Amino acid sequence: MHIFYTPDLIAEVYTLSEEESKHAVRVLRLQAGDEVVLVDGKGGYYQARILEANPKRTHLQVFQTQQEFGKRNHYLHIAVAPTKNIERLEWFLEKATELGIDEITPLICERSERKEVKTERLNKIISSAVKQSIKAYHPVLNEPIGFKKFVELPFDGQKFIAHCMEGDKSSIQEMIKPKSKYLVLIGPEGDFTSAELALAAANAIFPISLGKSRLRTETAALAACFEINFLNR
Amino acid sequence: MHIFYTPDLIAEVYTLSEEESKHAVRVLRLQAGDEVVLVDGKGGYYQARILEANPKRTHLQVFQTQQEFGKRNHYLHIAVAPTKNIERLEWFLEKATELGIDEITPLICERSERKEVKTERLNKIISSAVKQSIKAYHPVLNEPIGFKKFVELPFDGQKFIAHCMEGDKSSIQEMIKPKSKYLVLIGPEGDFTSAELALAAANAIFPISLGKSRLRTETAALAACFEINFLNR
Repeated sequence: MHIFYTPDLIAEVYTLSEEESKHAVRVLRLQAGDEVVLVDGKGGYYQARILEANPKRTHLQVFQTQQEFGKRNHYLHIAVAPTKNIERLEWFLEKATELGIDEITPLICERSERKEVKTERLNKIISSAVKQSIKAYHPVLNEPIGFKKFVELPFDGQKFIAHCMEGDKSSIQEMIKPKSKYLVLIGPEGDFTSAELALAAANAIFPISLGKSRLRTETAALAACFEINFLNR
Repeated sequence: MHIFYTPDLIAEVYTLSEEESKHAVRVLRLQAGDEVVLVDGKGGYYQARILEANPKRTHLQVFQTQQEFGKRNHYLHIAVAPTKNIERLEWFLEKATELGIDEITPLICERSERKEVKTERLNKIISSAVKQSIKAYHPVLNEPIGFKKFVELPFDGQKFIAHCMEGDKSSIQEMIKPKSKYLVLIGPEGDFTSAELALAAANAIFPISLGKSRLRTETAALAACFEINFLNR
């Protein structure tokens, strides 16, 4: 079954963009009468039939609608320092989308080697994973933000920070209230600084450990994502 | 701290290979007296000092030895169908090494699009992750093997097969005996065939589910690795 991501779907008749129309007709060789699936990224899952297979404007008719498709029982926001090698962050975005995540913020830290990211390209990777793993919800990717500014933003859920320095740390498992909202901060290759950790503590962000292994940034972020999804199964 | 993988270390004086010596002296700029760490891949963790920083033959003296360094409380063998895009399998190997795995077998299935892999290159990826995440145990990568032959091999632990078809499936969590030996089979992009699933059942390999999400091959393999490590924490 072919899936299209259609965030602007509002009526029962929908027209694919020129790029998507070309893909549908020239690559997928879809024809009038063929069935496809549309997901709007906000929980809507639509079964539709092709009315006209036009490589510029392919028209579709929705014949079945499901809202809150695959709705998860919790909300997960991961703020992660972009990796020096951007492919590692891209890999995290793809895998987290498959496993289940709601919001991602690229977090610029004191020791970040990479201070900027192109969210447009990263969003395309997320959209592609949304389609591949048939998700009706599209994770939100925020613009990059500095650590100091970010930790002061309000968040009405549990807030955690994973770091590798010594000190009292609990596991997520010990801390977590099930079916809740969670924010997890993951630092850069050189870890958070003690000043950043102090600032996190001052903003009621609790230090956690992700187990005994020394993990790369993107692996730690994915481990947090896995663990929170697992504990909410 | 710089780490070298030295599987052939047997005495307290060790000589780095020509390639490693060149790297140590020309790239890392190590000098006589500098301290490094050696891991032998079989649980040995050694602190050593450079006796002579020679770009062809760098000699080291071990001054502290620890056996069974970071020994895990269980044994995990994952047999996974190599992905069409080999980079996806490479990612899995790197991440699984970071998280903790003992043995990996590339499993050639009926629907495998890729029937062969170059284990030499894949082993280099594992060794690099061993060093990066400071592991004293080096996961074993077996040569590829056909599904039918593999499922008939003896294995003295719990055997699971993860697939996407309908049917009675338990979660790993429901099935697992803690601190044990586990084998998990992960299929190719097009999943296992029913004939393969029947063959697995005939060989006492139990079907499991890895949660509700539709996961790519390498994500499923990593999810199994996460989950088994997590349940043995």
